[in-house]
Amino acid sequence: MIAVDWGTSSFRAYRLGRDGRVLDTRSAPSGILSVANGKFSAVLDAQAGDWIRAGDGPVVMSGMIGSRQGWLEVPYAACPAGFDEIAAGMRKVAWDGTTAWIAPGLSCRDEAGIPDVMRGEEVQILGVLDRLGAGAHTICLPGTHSKWVDVSDGKIARFTTHMTGEAFAVFKAHSILGRMMKDGATDVTAFEDGVRRSADAGGLLHHLFGVRAGGLLGELSEATSASYLSGILIGHEIRSAHRSRSQVHLLCSVRLVEIYGRAFSALGIEAKVFDSDSVTKGLFRLAAYL
Amino acid sequence: MIAVDWGTSSFRAYRLGRDGRVLDTRSAPSGILSVANGKFSAVLDAQAGDWIRAGDGPVVMSGMIGSRQGWLEVPYAACPAGFDEIAAGMRKVAWDGTTAWIAPGLSCRDEAGIPDVMRGEEVQILGVLDRLGAGAHTICLPGTHSKWVDVSDGKIARFTTHMTGEAFAVFKAHSILGRMMKDGATDVTAFEDGVRRSADAGGLLHHLFGVRAGGLLGELSEATSASYLSGILIGHEIRSAHRSRSQVHLLCSVRLVEIYGRAFSALGIEAKVFDSDSVTKGLFRLAAYL
Repeated sequence: MIAVDWGTSSFRAYRLGRDGRVLDTRSAPSGILSVANGKFSAVLDAQAGDWIRAGDGPVVMSGMIGSRQGWLEVPYAACPAGFDEIAAGMRKVAWDGTTAWIAPGLSCRDEAGIPDVMRGEEVQILGVLDRLGAGAHTICLPGTHSKWVDVSDGKIARFTTHMTGEAFAVFKAHSILGRMMKDGATDVTAFEDGVRRSADAGGLLHHLFGVRAGGLLGELSEATSASYLSGILIGHEIRSAHRSRSQVHLLCSVRLVEIYGRAFSALGIEAKVFDSDSVTKGLFRLAAYL
Repeated sequence: MIAVDWGTSSFRAYRLGRDGRVLDTRSAPSGILSVANGKFSAVLDAQAGDWIRAGDGPVVMSGMIGSRQGWLEVPYAACPAGFDEIAAGMRKVAWDGTTAWIAPGLSCRDEAGIPDVMRGEEVQILGVLDRLGAGAHTICLPGTHSKWVDVSDGKIARFTTHMTGEAFAVFKAHSILGRMMKDGATDVTAFEDGVRRSADAGGLLHHLFGVRAGGLLGELSEATSASYLSGILIGHEIRSAHRSRSQVHLLCSVRLVEIYGRAFSALGIEAKVFDSDSVTKGLFRLAAYL
């Protein structure tokens, strides 16, 4: 089969063997926002047309390609959702006698009835469900919009999204905090100070101003302020998202594993890391439903 | 005397009578960031030189004019601080045979030793101290960087700063949340929904993403999203800054009185509003120390 992970800013296609092994990979900076006039089929043809014509099996895609700005808006499936519910939500696109399938996103509501959504991460989670086994598990997928997912007996029971990565980016680039920051490697001490700061009284909006006050008083340097800010935000995310403090499964890039791993250590939470082939594993399993 | 409130983006001068009454007012968009080559004396001469030459008494200034980017960096006085401590921290600038005084800002440290600072608000607080009387009081000065101030027996005991207004501005202008917002009048229902949302589990970074999810699912409109975001941020500020839920004294512009007044009502907190002549009252009292 052909598995496609098509997000806002990047495109990745994988040719998978009958056992699900990755035989070949293609990637391009052809995220959906870069595709002009809705010509998604042309991009897919250019990237993986030879695989498709060679009869390498069904094409299954996930990510923002199924959003309103993508190829076809695929409705969100509702939690709780596992393989069956997500597979049932797949929708077909057709062009030039060829077809491809797009997986749905997921939605859920909290106790107050407020909605949350994801699109793309649900397939990554499907890709690790088998390895999690029965019982209840918590998965953290950190990033621009971090996802915290409760899995129970093979289904995604509920999840929450946290704007941690985007908050860091906008405060650094556009707020007064960024004026006192230099780019550079993470300062581990400042980062861990920030993570621990999240446990103090005063709330996030106050802790953020501490980055400014520390700079004004010469207690934070331009080299350490960004790391401290990152620690504050990630600390608040973890403390708010995961109040039980039980073991967390971390599903993300190597770079984020390093950063979040440090935060979990500082908060005394055990984190178990998955390798990052979860998207292809999830799409491979969905293809079996076609 | 001549009282000058000189901030980052605006300049205001007041001619006060012997009883402290405002006889005349001048204002200009000559905030310290707009003053080229450190020519602060030229701006002051242009705005209030006639008053100074007429011998209208001492010139006392407060605000960012005493910061590193201002006329003279005046060190922060440390909390607890009342009239005596703040008056003792005033510093003199001189030009062309004339002098003026700049009030210091204030600094404090919380139990964890993390610093906080203010510059300008301390004089507004001095201006209402007499009216507060003895005992313990909480003052809220909302804004770009909201200040929450504990006053005890005529001294500023401690305070916390919250980046509420700036967070609203950067999320609206620079994050994905702003893409689904139209400018317009406050939607009271959406604002109060946001204030109440701050009490739910999940934390601020999660509640922020709810603005996005509600928009994607058609449950928040472009006309109501900004009000909901504002309510979430102000709700988090109040709940984190003022955990006792006792009466609060609100010291700010009429526009912010309306917004914060609604938030306090939604949270069941009694708010008492001061009229906004507190800066001149504070500077008038400081002039008596010269």
